[in-house]
Formats: sequence, C-alpha cells, structure tokens
Amino acid sequence: MVRAIEWIDAAADSHIRLIDQTRLPAEEVFLEVTNVDLLIDAIQRLAVRGAPALGAAGGYGVALALHEAARENWSEEQLSAAITAIADARPTAVNLAWGANRVAEFRAEGFDRCLTEARAIAAEDEAANRELSRLGADWLLARVGDRPLRAVTHCNTGALATTAWGTAYGILHELHERGKLELVYVDETRPLLQGTRLTSWELQQDGIPHLVEVDGAASSTILRGLVDFAVIGADRITANGDTANKVGSVALALACARKGIPFVVAAPYSTVDEATATGDEIEIEERGDEEVLAFGGAQVATPGVRAFNPAFDVTPHDIISAIVTERGVVEPAATAQPLFGG
Amino acid sequence: MVRAIEWIDAAADSHIRLIDQTRLPAEEVFLEVTNVDLLIDAIQRLAVRGAPALGAAGGYGVALALHEAARENWSEEQLSAAITAIADARPTAVNLAWGANRVAEFRAEGFDRCLTEARAIAAEDEAANRELSRLGADWLLARVGDRPLRAVTHCNTGALATTAWGTAYGILHELHERGKLELVYVDETRPLLQGTRLTSWELQQDGIPHLVEVDGAASSTILRGLVDFAVIGADRITANGDTANKVGSVALALACARKGIPFVVAAPYSTVDEATATGDEIEIEERGDEEVLAFGGAQVATPGVRAFNPAFDVTPHDIISAIVTERGVVEPAATAQPLFGG
Repeated sequence: MVRAIEWIDAAADSHIRLIDQTRLPAEEVFLEVTNVDLLIDAIQRLAVRGAPALGAAGGYGVALALHEAARENWSEEQLSAAITAIADARPTAVNLAWGANRVAEFRAEGFDRCLTEARAIAAEDEAANRELSRLGADWLLARVGDRPLRAVTHCNTGALATTAWGTAYGILHELHERGKLELVYVDETRPLLQGTRLTSWELQQDGIPHLVEVDGAASSTILRGLVDFAVIGADRITANGDTANKVGSVALALACARKGIPFVVAAPYSTVDEATATGDEIEIEERGDEEVLAFGGAQVATPGVRAFNPAFDVTPHDIISAIVTERGVVEPAATAQPLFGG
Repeated sequence: MVRAIEWIDAAADSHIRLIDQTRLPAEEVFLEVTNVDLLIDAIQRLAVRGAPALGAAGGYGVALALHEAARENWSEEQLSAAITAIADARPTAVNLAWGANRVAEFRAEGFDRCLTEARAIAAEDEAANRELSRLGADWLLARVGDRPLRAVTHCNTGALATTAWGTAYGILHELHERGKLELVYVDETRPLLQGTRLTSWELQQDGIPHLVEVDGAASSTILRGLVDFAVIGADRITANGDTANKVGSVALALACARKGIPFVVAAPYSTVDEATATGDEIEIEERGDEEVLAFGGAQVATPGVRAFNPAFDVTPHDIISAIVTERGVVEPAATAQPLFGG
C-alpha cells in the first residue's frame, strides 16, 4: 500500500515525503519535502490531495516548520508566518487548516511534541479507516452473501486520498484480503479522471482485479446484474444521512435502488455534519468550464461554448442502504430520522 | 441547419458533399466527394456517421457510382463491384447497405432514376424527423406546461446524425423555433464526446442556449430541478418499448422517474424492432479499451489496466414517459403491453 504522505526520520534532515499525485499513473515520483515553501507548492499544485491526507499535511507541516525554524534560526514571527501560510495554502480545504491548527497548539512544547501530535492525526485516520473497512466488509458479507463479491465504485477513496488504507476503497481492500472480492468496476470519474488515474493505479498496486468504465456505464452495469453492490466515499454526510460526494455518485444509488442491491457510503465519522439537517442545505461547489471542455490542455468544444461543472452531487438518504463509519453501520433507507446527532 | 450529406447538381461534376465530422468542432471542412473511392474513405474514417445519414450515403453513393461509370466508361462488372464496395464499407452499419440496395434496384433505369430514389431516402428521413419533432413538442408543452422549457439530452441526434433536422435534437429545435426552449444541458457523452463535439456545435449553429456537463452530472441536474424533461434518441426500440441507446441514457431515465418529470425517446418508426419482444434480447456491443483509457492518443491509465466499454444501454419501458415517432406518441410507462406490432 502506497502512503500519500509520511514523515521521514533522519537526524539531520527529517522531512515529509509525498507521492506526487499529479505525475500518477505515468510516473511514481516521490517528493522529499524539506522546507515549508516546498510543502506549500506541493499542496497548491495538488501533488497531495484528499481531505484526510491534507489534514495530515497540515499537521506534519507545522512540525516541519519548527524543524526548519531551528535549523535556520527563524524568529517567532517568521515561524508564525510559516504556519499561517501552510494553513492557508488551499483556502477551501478545511482539513488542512484543522490539521495545522491542532498541531500548532503544541508549538510552545517544541518539535518533538508537535511531531507526536501530527503522527496522532495520521494514526487516528488510519485506525478509523481500518475499523470502518472491517465493519463494512462484515455488513456486506452478511447482507449479500459470504462469497467473492463484485463491486462498482466512483472516484478515488484509497490510500492516496487518506493517510492510509482508504474508506470505500478500504472496504474493497478488506474484502480482497479476506478472499471475498471477485472484480471491481471503476468509474473513470470525469472531469478529473480520479478513477482512471488514481483508483485504477491503487487497485493494480494491490493486485485487485478491475475494469475501468465511463461514468455513464455505471447505471447499466448495475441494472444488468454485473455487480453485487456499489460503494462510495463521502465529502459530507448530513444529520439525516443525505450524502454529498463526487458528481456522478447519485446515479449509482438510483440504479442500485431499482436493482435492489446495496448502495454503501463509507467515511470516517468526522465526515458527519450533525449540525446540518438535510442535503438540501448543502451548497454545491461549481468549478471551471475548462475541466469539462478541454482534455490535456486541448480544447474539445467550440470556442464560446460554456459548461456546467458541479463538483459534487447529493444522494438522498432513502436510497442509501448503509453508511459505514468507524463507529458502526447505520441503514438510512430503513431507519427513522434523525440518524446522527439530535 | 447544417446538412451532413447532400447531392450537389452541376452538369459536368455532380457529386456528394459531406461535412467532415472528424474535423468538428475545430474546423468546418466540407468534402466534395466526386468518386466512389473518396466516398468509401469518408465512410470508413467516420467523416459521415449516424444511421440515417449513412442510409442516405448508401443511396447517394449508388447514384455517384453510376455517374462515375458513365464518365469513366466502366464495365457492368466494375459498376457492380463499386456498388458492393459502398454497401460493405462499414459492415455493422445496416442502414448503409439498406440505402445502397434500395437505390441499386433502379440501376437498369439509369442515373436520373437512381438519384431520384436516393433523394427520396433523404426526403423521407427529413419528413419523419420534422413530423416527430412537431408531435414531441406538442406532447411536451401539453404535459409540462406551455412555457419555455429546460431540457437535458445525451449524445448527438441532430442534423449531423441524420439527413436533416434530427430526432431528439429535432424536438429541441422545434421548441426553440416556437420560443419554448429556455436552456439545454448537453451530456458530453463519453467515451467519444459526441455531446461536446457535435451536439454543442449544432446548438451553437442554431443559436440555442446550452451548457455542456459531464455525464455523471446529469442525474443531479435532474434531481435538483434544473430541467423540465430529458429527451434522447434511440438505436433500437423493442416491441414492449424497451430502448437501446448510447451508454449513459438509462441514468437520465432513472433520475426523471425519481423526480417525476418526463423522459422522452424520439426516433423514426424504422427504429422500432417489432420482432424483438423486450430489451433483454438485445446484445450490447462492447468496443475497444482505448476509447476509455486514452484521450487524444495519450494513455491515461497505467499500462496493463483493462476497460469495460459497452456502447449502449437499455432503458426499461416502465420508466419511459413517451416514445415519439412520425406515427405518433406512445406512453410506455402508462400503457398495457405490447406497444408495437403484435
């Protein structure tokens, strides 16, 4: 299993190591991030991405800043500026600032304490992923049948998006290790192709049989009976179980509901937003036209044509069979409201 | 409105004119096809495509062959070989051979009679498209409301895919001419991007407001209430109304059923296959991996990764609100079986 981010201990030059996700899958290039400027550059050009991975990047980043401050004899003001710059490197990535702030609270206690806290962030994320993967695999084998299963998934939810192991991907990996995974259909996940570029690469690394399909094929893959269940991650889960995730996710849920097979959401409990009642309250981020209208820098559409490019969609809770977190499995389609909080 | 194919009358050099669809939308290049070899080349490299357009290409091709035979003093054997070569230029395109054979029956009556028959093929296709477009627009305005409507469509069903006007696109065009079309969301239609490359180009030519979206966005566009209906074409409609169309179509139908808005199929009646009872009997063509795994010749996936690339999906009749042909509108979701034939 690849690590999207890790801390390398080496007396003189302890640092952060990242796999450069912008180079995948063509090249496996590791970045040795030895100072704060290099880290900020890596974050901004998406060499590291995924909410849990960015939380760890924020935490390790503060440790790196203290290390650099000692080496370079920074003033307290210089150190403060560096920490702020890390937290703000991607303004919409709330996990990045959360991780940086959590570790920065221990700044007065020095580098070792900060590194310990950063490692705790990563360890907690991995532990949550491992636990929800066990719970999800147990639930699926009990619900669908204790035999090798066929799955469909969307986007990237593996080790690259987290600190380790993954969420929806983690359930697939867990089933594979138990000998209970026959085949995975991977949606390519337009517009940024995380499925083709990242999930397929991880599945290949882990020796898991899979086929990449266009996103439009997912519904018929489900309706034709080619898979036993669908599993996706989540960007945000509201109190009633409505789930925001990469655009295209709800198509799988609608097809699973029609076919009568499980549609499963997997995420750490930190993804649950108990303060938001329903998915109607979620604002859907819209991204730039060029992601849709161009490929690899080459324009496909006629000049002047505009795109509609929502980054997420919302799957209503009543067509979600199970939401799996490290705290357990809830069944929104079969459960009275509210599911979380309240 | 562009013409995918037309016959150019010019005493000495009468010939076929095609718009080269492989160059769209970057360039509008017209091909002056003055001999059979040029026509076969254009068909094989997909400069002309779409079942109805290929039917006309077969018909006009035979007229062109007779014209060339007279000019070049071909033997009867040379002429026969040329006609066969046209009919066989794309073995899986049944309309191509159908059009060539229909016109070749009049070979003994000479060039003028053959050209008349080829023009009849094109005229009948255009008349069917115009009529089904009127019927479809009438049905939608009666069902949804007599006001400017917002639509979502998939793939290319416009003038480029037919001899003129289009099918699903024709309904949109008809609504536009009546002042009853506000906005069209166009699925990009992976893997070959007919939506981005062709439908968007046609909409721009016709001055129809539209936005291109990734195929995965269509479901949430429907569920969020951004459109009033969805309309698609059809490659084959079975006796019970099950409809095979470009992969990704059924996702729109599932979302429309959930949202309670019309999902409309538009096609000439020749698309109805009365001899096939249900969609379960339709074999789904699978195409090559490279369409999914590469963009513009550049590999995206890791070497060794495989794709699943079904060209079509089947939408079950019970979630199709209306099937519109030139013979009228049937309502599969609300009608006892069988709908066609029987």
